[in-house]
Amino acid sequence: MEDFVFDGATRVVFGRGKEQEAGKEVARLGAKKVLVLYGQGSVKKSGLLDRVFRSLKTEGIQYSELGGVAPNPKVALIREGVKLGKQKGIELVLAVGGGSVIDSAKGIAVGVPYDGDVWDFSEKKVAPQKALPVGSVLTIPAAGSEASKYAVATSDDGPYPMKRDIVFVNNELIRPAFTIMNPELTFSLPPFQTACGVVDIIAHVIERYFTSVRDVELTDRLCEAVVKTVIHNAYIVMKDPTNYSARAEIMWAGSLAHNDLLGTGRAPDFASHMIEHELSAVYNMTHGAGLAIIFPAWAKHVYKHNLERFVQFATRVWNVEMNVFDPDSVAKEGIARLEQFYKDMGLPTRLSEMKIPRDRFAEMAEKSVKLGSIKKMTTDDVQKIYELAY
Amino acid sequence: MEDFVFDGATRVVFGRGKEQEAGKEVARLGAKKVLVLYGQGSVKKSGLLDRVFRSLKTEGIQYSELGGVAPNPKVALIREGVKLGKQKGIELVLAVGGGSVIDSAKGIAVGVPYDGDVWDFSEKKVAPQKALPVGSVLTIPAAGSEASKYAVATSDDGPYPMKRDIVFVNNELIRPAFTIMNPELTFSLPPFQTACGVVDIIAHVIERYFTSVRDVELTDRLCEAVVKTVIHNAYIVMKDPTNYSARAEIMWAGSLAHNDLLGTGRAPDFASHMIEHELSAVYNMTHGAGLAIIFPAWAKHVYKHNLERFVQFATRVWNVEMNVFDPDSVAKEGIARLEQFYKDMGLPTRLSEMKIPRDRFAEMAEKSVKLGSIKKMTTDDVQKIYELAY
Repeated sequence: MEDFVFDGATRVVFGRGKEQEAGKEVARLGAKKVLVLYGQGSVKKSGLLDRVFRSLKTEGIQYSELGGVAPNPKVALIREGVKLGKQKGIELVLAVGGGSVIDSAKGIAVGVPYDGDVWDFSEKKVAPQKALPVGSVLTIPAAGSEASKYAVATSDDGPYPMKRDIVFVNNELIRPAFTIMNPELTFSLPPFQTACGVVDIIAHVIERYFTSVRDVELTDRLCEAVVKTVIHNAYIVMKDPTNYSARAEIMWAGSLAHNDLLGTGRAPDFASHMIEHELSAVYNMTHGAGLAIIFPAWAKHVYKHNLERFVQFATRVWNVEMNVFDPDSVAKEGIARLEQFYKDMGLPTRLSEMKIPRDRFAEMAEKSVKLGSIKKMTTDDVQKIYELAY
Repeated sequence: MEDFVFDGATRVVFGRGKEQEAGKEVARLGAKKVLVLYGQGSVKKSGLLDRVFRSLKTEGIQYSELGGVAPNPKVALIREGVKLGKQKGIELVLAVGGGSVIDSAKGIAVGVPYDGDVWDFSEKKVAPQKALPVGSVLTIPAAGSEASKYAVATSDDGPYPMKRDIVFVNNELIRPAFTIMNPELTFSLPPFQTACGVVDIIAHVIERYFTSVRDVELTDRLCEAVVKTVIHNAYIVMKDPTNYSARAEIMWAGSLAHNDLLGTGRAPDFASHMIEHELSAVYNMTHGAGLAIIFPAWAKHVYKHNLERFVQFATRVWNVEMNVFDPDSVAKEGIARLEQFYKDMGLPTRLSEMKIPRDRFAEMAEKSVKLGSIKKMTTDDVQKIYELAY
């Protein structure tokens, strides 16, 4: 096990109707003025936003609101939020939505106490020194942003490759103070979004799972527990979208997948996440859908570098029968079953199905951030993975 | 899944030599004066205490020290710590030791900002309103106190039943701010203490596992992951006490076992813990050793009330082959394997082996705190469990 620091500091309030406690949670932190951030308006139509506003009013909390956060969120809206937050003297940012809204809230949270432009943090010109607390009412289990120290945003400064989808901040300062999770809020998620969320959650776990660190039994088993639970319950919600129990399992799993607990003592391998980010940036693909295509291709390309753990993944997660005479076939069967699962979720698993041409693979491979624990990616590796994913 | 609030707020600093960062962790919290609490002096002999003191000095932190915390810790020493803490104006309590030391540190932490006697919290005369932050350098993986909101202490006011081992405080206020875990510090633990720690850790998990709440798949699997890891690594450390990796797995598992993560959405069943507490109080038995005796007896007494989960425990944790025609035998085999594991750890699993007479079972059953999720205990139940444990 490698040395680690774990700061699992996000308070989780979980259950039916808990969005009505948003005001109470803000009040616990002593904030009197908040900025409520949301996305494309579905939270308005559903009445969720009104319930949140009411709970703020009940606690005597003043609020400003800002809507319009888009998927693969833009820094322009973060800048707008920062400006508004400074004007209004806000003390906390409350995100009502999914990963993009929470990521944007984190951007605003580091931007308000900072004199320069918030994009400076992305370009590593400076490290954030202060942040407002962030809270959230989660509506989409996927990104895990509600309990993570990560935020991703896209600059709007021009066409690709200037327009890049990159990790914007990675800092304990932006780990949300609280998150409110009501699984009922996810009942209305369409199948495609549910599936993309499931893929993203599983990716967060297995990118930590596939590590070159050998002795990590506890977190291996915790990872397997989360993935098995998500797979089982994903099949249930696809048939029965208002199944509270299954929605609840996925929602709680989504937070644990990315709050770093499962990465303790491990060196994670975020290679496939980064390879996918290029797809999102160039073709505006939904991150989860892109991962369903890239992850199996990445796995096929690298599994021989960590055959033991791919065999373990196949036998423990997918119940592939062990074949001690041919572990290679066992590992490959595990990857095949993962790919089949993505198909069962109704997602494409090949770039060709998405009508994505092969002509920019070299350019994207060149631009991609290259990570990797079990195999550090090279441009050649990334290009091969795009080819395998075709 | 039941509604829950989860506040996993303890910062974990894990790895070789990390006790040298104690001062840095205290400084992060802005404390300038600390009380360093420890037990029977082994941390002095080993040089650990000196290393901690040095790290405090490096950060310019003033400290007072108080040693002498005993297993099944007494309120008298907590009172002494409160007095000293008030005199010296301490701002943080730093425990260097295991569960008893950390529990006592928590007592001091709520006692210092309180005008009355600290035992008032035990007798529920008042609820604590404030607490100093607590930190720890953990030396014994067992109680999980380093990341929990629980503390247990014993009053010294007379013989049993006045002298009771009871939950002293159960409050988010006392959840430690940080814990430092260096698995090397546990290399020198004797086999008996290692075994008792392992039993305590497993008990914390399975008392959450055995719940009457049905749909809790994620936490079921997380519980199984922790128990399987602890069992596997317990066998390793019994043969090879300086195996870093195995000690590390057990140490991290010990914290996750009791920080409430595994209990999220579940109603835990702490019946056997409470039944054991009487043994510790009357016969001054080590808590873990008592649990190795009580838990299997409790399980035999109640398993029919939740046959499904006992079958799941047997098949998933102990790899008992499923027998759909006779699930009862599967459940019993799981309990038998748990009992065998305790024996393999060198622990007695019967009261008769401990030469504990049967004559006070009725009195103890009468006095025992009676909890239970899958079966709420009655005096009759508890007495039967003592008999089964004989």
